[in-house]
Amino acid sequence: MNDKKRRLAIDMDEVLADTHAKFLTLFNRDFGIPLDLKQKPGTEIFENMPKEIGDHWKKYVNEPGFFRDVPVMRGALNIVPELNKKYDLFIVSAAMEFKNSFLDKYSWLEEHFPFIPWTNILFTGRKIIVSDVLIDDRAKNFSEHIERPLLFTSPHNVLLEEYERVNSWEEVGEKLL
Amino acid sequence: MNDKKRRLAIDMDEVLADTHAKFLTLFNRDFGIPLDLKQKPGTEIFENMPKEIGDHWKKYVNEPGFFRDVPVMRGALNIVPELNKKYDLFIVSAAMEFKNSFLDKYSWLEEHFPFIPWTNILFTGRKIIVSDVLIDDRAKNFSEHIERPLLFTSPHNVLLEEYERVNSWEEVGEKLL
Repeated sequence: MNDKKRRLAIDMDEVLADTHAKFLTLFNRDFGIPLDLKQKPGTEIFENMPKEIGDHWKKYVNEPGFFRDVPVMRGALNIVPELNKKYDLFIVSAAMEFKNSFLDKYSWLEEHFPFIPWTNILFTGRKIIVSDVLIDDRAKNFSEHIERPLLFTSPHNVLLEEYERVNSWEEVGEKLL
Repeated sequence: MNDKKRRLAIDMDEVLADTHAKFLTLFNRDFGIPLDLKQKPGTEIFENMPKEIGDHWKKYVNEPGFFRDVPVMRGALNIVPELNKKYDLFIVSAAMEFKNSFLDKYSWLEEHFPFIPWTNILFTGRKIIVSDVLIDDRAKNFSEHIERPLLFTSPHNVLLEEYERVNSWEEVGEKLL
């Protein structure tokens, strides 16, 4: 029974979805930013280029379709189905910030993770959820109602030292399977 | 500061939005079901008409636009702005069941409750949230992480006796303001 399983919540952008790679593709296409951009630790991607270029991230994410063809994060397609067997697995994405993202994100999940039912998907503002585990790249989402927060490594969070960290989906599998 | 306020979560359909009235309008338009349909206590609206008519509810809710012009529940426009001053107010709707509802529900909130920021809106499957208060018409959403569940009266839930009940937005105001 699902109710007996421990609850595992998983964020989308920079965790399940390689939104960083999608941004780089667009910055490269439009402004010639190199695809192997060296990002300063602890900064957002758009802070690593001239401001007038970086500011385009807001335009990109608000365009319908942006989130529809984001690459799946490496390793997720192998590990997430196994996690889904063991845990009561939820997808929890702060999609509410970009209203054109709702349908794209939903269709993306249907395509890549069709075994996750609608009952286990949440598009949120603040993540006021309760979960045994939450895998997220943003530490602000780790409230006291998350028993075991796992910080998924992303360039913007590499300087944070106070969280249990996972650097890849392989590492997630080692810890949780 | 918002963090000092108690958290109040509010459901949409049958609580903030009079989805029941919208259904009746369509059943009346298409099948002549009377607008003052007498509904058997403890039943869903679609159980109070021949099955081949009632089954159309699924068609209605999946049509883009269905949720866009649902009437606001009587009294909500007066009370919710006052609640928003006193509480850290969230809208939590199980929108995930109907993917064509996302944009309609978001736009509906923007129109009628523009003071609620995106950070305080959640479209969910199961409501795995933590809140001091949750006003909802579905008792299944009252987990142990809801300190004070308030069951908003709707024909389908009138037979339930084990919950603190609110029969109108005026009553919500009397209890919470």
